[in-house]
Amino acid sequence: MTSPYGRAESVLGGSAVYFSFAASAFAPVRLVAVVGEDFPEEFRKVLTTRNIDLSGLETRRGSQTFRWRGHFEADMREAQTLEVDLNVLAEPGPKVPDRFADSKIVFLGNTHPTQQRELLAQVRSPALVACDTMNLWIMTERDSLLQTLALVHGVILNDTEARMLTDRVNLIEAGDAILDLGPKFVVIKKGEHGAILLTREGTAAVPAFPARIVRDPTGAGDSFAGGMLGYLASCGRFDFESLRRSLVRGTVAASFTIEDFSLRRLARLERAEFDERLAAFVGMLRFD
Amino acid sequence: MTSPYGRAESVLGGSAVYFSFAASAFAPVRLVAVVGEDFPEEFRKVLTTRNIDLSGLETRRGSQTFRWRGHFEADMREAQTLEVDLNVLAEPGPKVPDRFADSKIVFLGNTHPTQQRELLAQVRSPALVACDTMNLWIMTERDSLLQTLALVHGVILNDTEARMLTDRVNLIEAGDAILDLGPKFVVIKKGEHGAILLTREGTAAVPAFPARIVRDPTGAGDSFAGGMLGYLASCGRFDFESLRRSLVRGTVAASFTIEDFSLRRLARLERAEFDERLAAFVGMLRFD
Repeated sequence: MTSPYGRAESVLGGSAVYFSFAASAFAPVRLVAVVGEDFPEEFRKVLTTRNIDLSGLETRRGSQTFRWRGHFEADMREAQTLEVDLNVLAEPGPKVPDRFADSKIVFLGNTHPTQQRELLAQVRSPALVACDTMNLWIMTERDSLLQTLALVHGVILNDTEARMLTDRVNLIEAGDAILDLGPKFVVIKKGEHGAILLTREGTAAVPAFPARIVRDPTGAGDSFAGGMLGYLASCGRFDFESLRRSLVRGTVAASFTIEDFSLRRLARLERAEFDERLAAFVGMLRFD
Repeated sequence: MTSPYGRAESVLGGSAVYFSFAASAFAPVRLVAVVGEDFPEEFRKVLTTRNIDLSGLETRRGSQTFRWRGHFEADMREAQTLEVDLNVLAEPGPKVPDRFADSKIVFLGNTHPTQQRELLAQVRSPALVACDTMNLWIMTERDSLLQTLALVHGVILNDTEARMLTDRVNLIEAGDAILDLGPKFVVIKKGEHGAILLTREGTAAVPAFPARIVRDPTGAGDSFAGGMLGYLASCGRFDFESLRRSLVRGTVAASFTIEDFSLRRLARLERAEFDERLAAFVGMLRFD
């Protein structure tokens, strides 16, 4: 990864990792993912420093880990992909371990929508299921994606994806159109412009945390989702009020991620720092 | 004006008018502007329905009123100018009436920065001066604009203008750079993405009101500034806290303006409706 603020080569990344790091600040996380035999021992070690159960992290013999190399221009808006090796991600997905089958909160990270449903089917009776997706599946696997969207409670996606999925420019209209596809809530992430939550009960918008230090936006969206779902797991309620509150937790998690390359900032983040920024953000948005 | 939602021909408009309508909900407004002899009597009548003193509205014999025709594409983001006749705006500016010289709050609407300073010089001892500007002056009258910025307490401009003025992409950095030019506060308006306030004491961001009805964004930015300055005039304090609170008033004013063409929505806006939406917006941003 390179940006106008520096570079970081062959570092730990991936949606599941950013998500898990952010979520683990609120609740224990069970990670299900697959890597190749080249996955470095030191990366695994970093993951063990958090409240993350790694028994669903499959290391597949004879396969190589997914790799991505990207670059952010000065606008830091959308990463340009310089090189991508799907590797193990092009193979069949991982299995959900039996001991994870009683999980109550499920986040289906961005992968083929059919694989998302296969993973979900291995969880017995989840109370809350949310998913992510990407432009590739919206364009090439629309039918399968619609099947997944009909099964989940919520979808967390970015503005470009929401517009592409619904063919609407106005994001509020796009969100309404996604609710018509099945989900009870939609969160549209807008990067530096914050996020919007839409449900049938109400709509809410939050700005991004006004950030002076932005070195690498990679993983911001996944950290946002992790902060959201982690908070929802910890509070155990999924009504509009709780969803709205989860937005600010996601926002604050993302605001730390972008301050440094890879997982560096999240890895050294203290809970007290998180709470301090959360209080500042909540105060910034309080108008008596 | 045309948009995907309809059209309105030869209707009342202009920054000063949108600003005054929005501000007059909070405090009496003294309008200083110049129109041509073609300015319709019914437009003048609409202006008298509000708490707006029109003794600074000069009707210049032998001149024609400024006219602008624009179109919004489906993204409703930036209006495309189809036709513009500067007319009386290309002539010397209006005079500030003697009875306005004791005004305490001054908003210098978007016009040539030299004319902004000439107008300001006619006010004896203002307590708060804010200004707007536009891409044209940033590109062609930079030196004059910098002189104006050195004289004002605050500047309220949009994201494109802030980036153009400072050559920074990150809006927080752009805002910091504008503070270096003299103003004590900078408000960067981002349309559907809300606004950012920057001062040396603190930074604040607010989202836009999540709007389902957007027919004509013309005047949204001017209404925003009017709501802000009107509130500041009514509360009489200009510290960071008051500025921050003024952001939500500006946001709510703008959210009504865009619901219909021209001044139509603002003209039929009741104070109770404004207060109700303000309470909903403040509630949406409250996280206990």
